[in-house]
Amino acid sequence: MRLRQVFYGAWALLLMVGLLGCGTEPVNQADLAAANESKVYRWKLITTWPKNLPGLGVAPERLADHLRKMSNGRLDIKVYGAGELVGAFEIFDAVSQGTAEMGHGAAYYWRGKIPAAQMFATVPFGMNAQEMNGWLHHGGGLELWRELYAPFNLVPFAAGNSGVQMAGWFNKEINSIADLNGLKMRIPGLGGEVLARAGGVPVSLPGSEVYTALQTGVIDATEWVGPYNDLALSLHTAAQYYYYPGWHEPGPTLEAFVNKDAWESLPADLQEMISVATRAINEDMLSEFTARNNSALVTLIEEHDVEVRALPQDVLERLKTLSDEVVAESMQGDELTKRIYKSYSDYFSAVKNYHDISEQAYLNARQGSDDGA
Amino acid sequence: MRLRQVFYGAWALLLMVGLLGCGTEPVNQADLAAANESKVYRWKLITTWPKNLPGLGVAPERLADHLRKMSNGRLDIKVYGAGELVGAFEIFDAVSQGTAEMGHGAAYYWRGKIPAAQMFATVPFGMNAQEMNGWLHHGGGLELWRELYAPFNLVPFAAGNSGVQMAGWFNKEINSIADLNGLKMRIPGLGGEVLARAGGVPVSLPGSEVYTALQTGVIDATEWVGPYNDLALSLHTAAQYYYYPGWHEPGPTLEAFVNKDAWESLPADLQEMISVATRAINEDMLSEFTARNNSALVTLIEEHDVEVRALPQDVLERLKTLSDEVVAESMQGDELTKRIYKSYSDYFSAVKNYHDISEQAYLNARQGSDDGA
Repeated sequence: MRLRQVFYGAWALLLMVGLLGCGTEPVNQADLAAANESKVYRWKLITTWPKNLPGLGVAPERLADHLRKMSNGRLDIKVYGAGELVGAFEIFDAVSQGTAEMGHGAAYYWRGKIPAAQMFATVPFGMNAQEMNGWLHHGGGLELWRELYAPFNLVPFAAGNSGVQMAGWFNKEINSIADLNGLKMRIPGLGGEVLARAGGVPVSLPGSEVYTALQTGVIDATEWVGPYNDLALSLHTAAQYYYYPGWHEPGPTLEAFVNKDAWESLPADLQEMISVATRAINEDMLSEFTARNNSALVTLIEEHDVEVRALPQDVLERLKTLSDEVVAESMQGDELTKRIYKSYSDYFSAVKNYHDISEQAYLNARQGSDDGA
Repeated sequence: MRLRQVFYGAWALLLMVGLLGCGTEPVNQADLAAANESKVYRWKLITTWPKNLPGLGVAPERLADHLRKMSNGRLDIKVYGAGELVGAFEIFDAVSQGTAEMGHGAAYYWRGKIPAAQMFATVPFGMNAQEMNGWLHHGGGLELWRELYAPFNLVPFAAGNSGVQMAGWFNKEINSIADLNGLKMRIPGLGGEVLARAGGVPVSLPGSEVYTALQTGVIDATEWVGPYNDLALSLHTAAQYYYYPGWHEPGPTLEAFVNKDAWESLPADLQEMISVATRAINEDMLSEFTARNNSALVTLIEEHDVEVRALPQDVLERLKTLSDEVVAESMQGDELTKRIYKSYSDYFSAVKNYHDISEQAYLNARQGSDDGA
């Protein structure tokens, strides 16, 4: 009797363990793998964007959602807006040091520390979104980006793109290159250097500070993104003229980066989820901006009387000449910087050659004679 | 002694179960979820592409790889090329009926059965890749596509895009619209109908049959994709002239579809993996074509003496007029067809309005006076 009790007790224990830990399916390889990787990773993701800003700020939230759902909660990432844990421009160092496991921003913000980082965001008169994605994912770009960030203990991923940006908001008309002289403008990265060479005064500010700076006259002009995002920041209430086309950010890649120790602590399936989900977010942000920009543009014009103006052709020509100079000079750094510049330039030259007869030729053919083009 | 033996035996069993099925971590929610979803789903994916064809055929293989890695083998998909299980143009019915769980193809192949399906692949003189992705994922397109395929027991996803295609390979010069008269050309979907209206004879053939048909003179011309993919099919050995720009497929979306019963049998995490991985593949295919087309173009010109020609402007104008007529007439079907056409048209008109001053204006500004444009 006592023997039987013990025996039954042991089976009851076995049954409990089965119910709690093993499910009702027969043991198989997937069970084993799942059991070995059952740890929950609770991560912090810090961003350069105001919390939940449409487009840019929504991307890391969607990334975290995908990862949570795909992993059944095993990778549980909480997103913090700029200033919630650290300031917008402190996220690179904070993730590098492990204060948070992950960040979402734009690589040109780190140009003071790593000039070559700018090539992984956007280059004035350089590649558009589709071309950047080709370089990063099938042209050797991502491997160079990983090499560049490795000494900072970070693993970068492309995680969003706004498409061609607008040239920005101005409180005065731009009729000639001379009108840029003395202009105080919020414009980051290489575009800012080009403006400086044209006699302007570039200022780097996070998104949360742009509106106030423009409203109070600290700056005379600003670029931000495009109609959908700019409307969300109410930039139309602080400036009168809205210029196109953007020449300075023709398809900026947004970045996600992961602290390297945190990355290496992940099992292979969660690593793969991050690699795949960032690619999905990379497509998603561009898709969302593409879908929403026009109705925001119509709102800006029809409800807010914004004046949309084209930059004069000779201003664009001059900016292009200055851009080519600035980019070439900025990338005369160490051996890795030179390799990055060469990789970008060689690829750009090739992709542009084909796009002349494909993407661009098609857009112009589609335009046809409807518009007199 | 005997009692102790039984007791030890029970603990040994417990320990074994622990090692086999539960891992060494304490039991938590993620364990439970993982255990509940430990079933392995072994699926078949059938495609319209030759096995492992660069670009198009590689996409479903990469999709399966991502899913296998993310799920630790719980979603294990084997990819079959055209003709391995069923013929290229039989995959829609085969997945609909459950012969395979998943398919990868292009929606215009199903136009005989569902004319409106063509709108989810590509429309002559319509949207490019970036614009299609915006419509599908943030403009209501995907929801309409799901509604259209629901009666066929299929759940569709966007899963690849080639970008603007080339106008194709021709064994005679095209100097006027009259040169299309009587031309037997492999060209699927709405583009084929436009050719018919211009007096040509459109033929629909899967990729595996295109080369032979052109080589043997069954057809006089063919479009396929672009330099990277066309080189892989050796089309340059069967035709002399390579024309641009493609007007008939300005950014065709490739599709993945899942049998609805198979879809509903999946736990939520695996469903999310399919949703996310198809988005990643959607970006990846476009990136790969973008990165590889130019070097293939250079090979075609320099090593194979291919003559690259522009379609005359008046031919493009006439094809555009015919396209607008054909698309409008083809979409006068049932209520859902009309809704799809209206959604596409309204979105296209809006996105084109913005891209006139952003993507297109930028490409033309970048071209600058270097090329006399």
